Amino acid sequence: MPLIIHHLHLSQSERIVWLLEELGLEYDLKVYDRDPKTALAPAEFKSLHPVGAAPVFEDTNVDPKVILAESSAIVEYIIQRYGNGRLARKPSDPDYPRYLESFHFVNSSLQPRQGVLLTLNLLGDEAKNSPAGAAFTQRHAHLLKIVDQRLADSKYLAGDDLTAADIMIVYTLTTGRGWTPVDLTPYQNILRYLQDISKRPAYQSAMKKGDPTLEPMIGAKSTLR
Amino acid sequence: MPLIIHHLHLSQSERIVWLLEELGLEYDLKVYDRDPKTALAPAEFKSLHPVGAAPVFEDTNVDPKVILAESSAIVEYIIQRYGNGRLARKPSDPDYPRYLESFHFVNSSLQPRQGVLLTLNLLGDEAKNSPAGAAFTQRHAHLLKIVDQRLADSKYLAGDDLTAADIMIVYTLTTGRGWTPVDLTPYQNILRYLQDISKRPAYQSAMKKGDPTLEPMIGAKSTLR
Repeated sequence: MPLIIHHLHLSQSERIVWLLEELGLEYDLKVYDRDPKTALAPAEFKSLHPVGAAPVFEDTNVDPKVILAESSAIVEYIIQRYGNGRLARKPSDPDYPRYLESFHFVNSSLQPRQGVLLTLNLLGDEAKNSPAGAAFTQRHAHLLKIVDQRLADSKYLAGDDLTAADIMIVYTLTTGRGWTPVDLTPYQNILRYLQDISKRPAYQSAMKKGDPTLEPMIGAKSTLR
Repeated sequence: MPLIIHHLHLSQSERIVWLLEELGLEYDLKVYDRDPKTALAPAEFKSLHPVGAAPVFEDTNVDPKVILAESSAIVEYIIQRYGNGRLARKPSDPDYPRYLESFHFVNSSLQPRQGVLLTLNLLGDEAKNSPAGAAFTQRHAHLLKIVDQRLADSKYLAGDDLTAADIMIVYTLTTGRGWTPVDLTPYQNILRYLQDISKRPAYQSAMKKGDPTLEPMIGAKSTLR
């Protein structure tokens, strides 16, 4: 099989499995368990690419074969080289600006801020309750409010149709909350959106193939840890 | 002037000023001082866009005008709509995969990890020296090693010519270190690269216009704070 996705359980690589399912592409799925001691990627996974983080993607149709890290780069690569641009927007499209901003917002703003919350959790209550900790928590809530408002205005993140911006954000709003508990109760539009996403056959299929024992975290409470 | 860049001193928005200079485009530069009490963006800046962070970009050539946040989105927008694709790579180019990965690596991996170091600094020595703190510091060093290796293999981040991946990473490696002191002494290829960048007329011009009192931080030591 020429396209290979290396998927680490409970990780951003679920984005790529979902994308491949939405595009109806054939691919080879290699699934890795986390190291039970550290909950990080196992050595076998880290040896795939210097970055040492999920996802890692291979395209063996080209010579030399392409090996890519970074979920947002892999999403663009697959859409442009194998998806005829589907789920992206062209520079000439009127909704190109909103698409671009929504797509990049996820890994450049929302997810790094959620990562800071994870850091605070690992450091403990003193860090979380410090003035800096409180400011970071407030900033993350501000970003979720922006997402909630966008989803009040349209069915999907960048408009009324699914785009790669949704492929990016859903992990952060679902499985990603397993690492950083976030209660979505104040964000009713996000909860409506996650319900809609969970009904998509491609999403269901991706989650079943990649993380068959995981109940997708589409409710308000984080349930993973 | 139809393209407007709102630049906050000592921020990621220097990327956009540099890009506009490299592409030789006309633009209107609006510069904002940081709030002297918090070192954050002033209220006037925060009111420009819900995200409330630099950069904010306006394109008044279109109706309704486009207002964009997220530096990586703005870089793509300008290159695709005003730069004829210059400084990016096309999906058909052989170096498209490396370009994409390098571009996305900056805001998805390197900069969030540097942000975690900033969080640790704000929280103090106990957080920095904790096991979690040490692991985060090590992870950031690992990512810098990857960058250093790439710059041992080629003049620029995605090959032998300047691309938007360089536009993205230089802020993180220079002015960004003012917020999170990082000693680059172990990364001699990065230091060679920053010397090369600092000689580019467009970079010099951007830094002079955007942050005229700042000496670009191209040496090994962080000098800002």
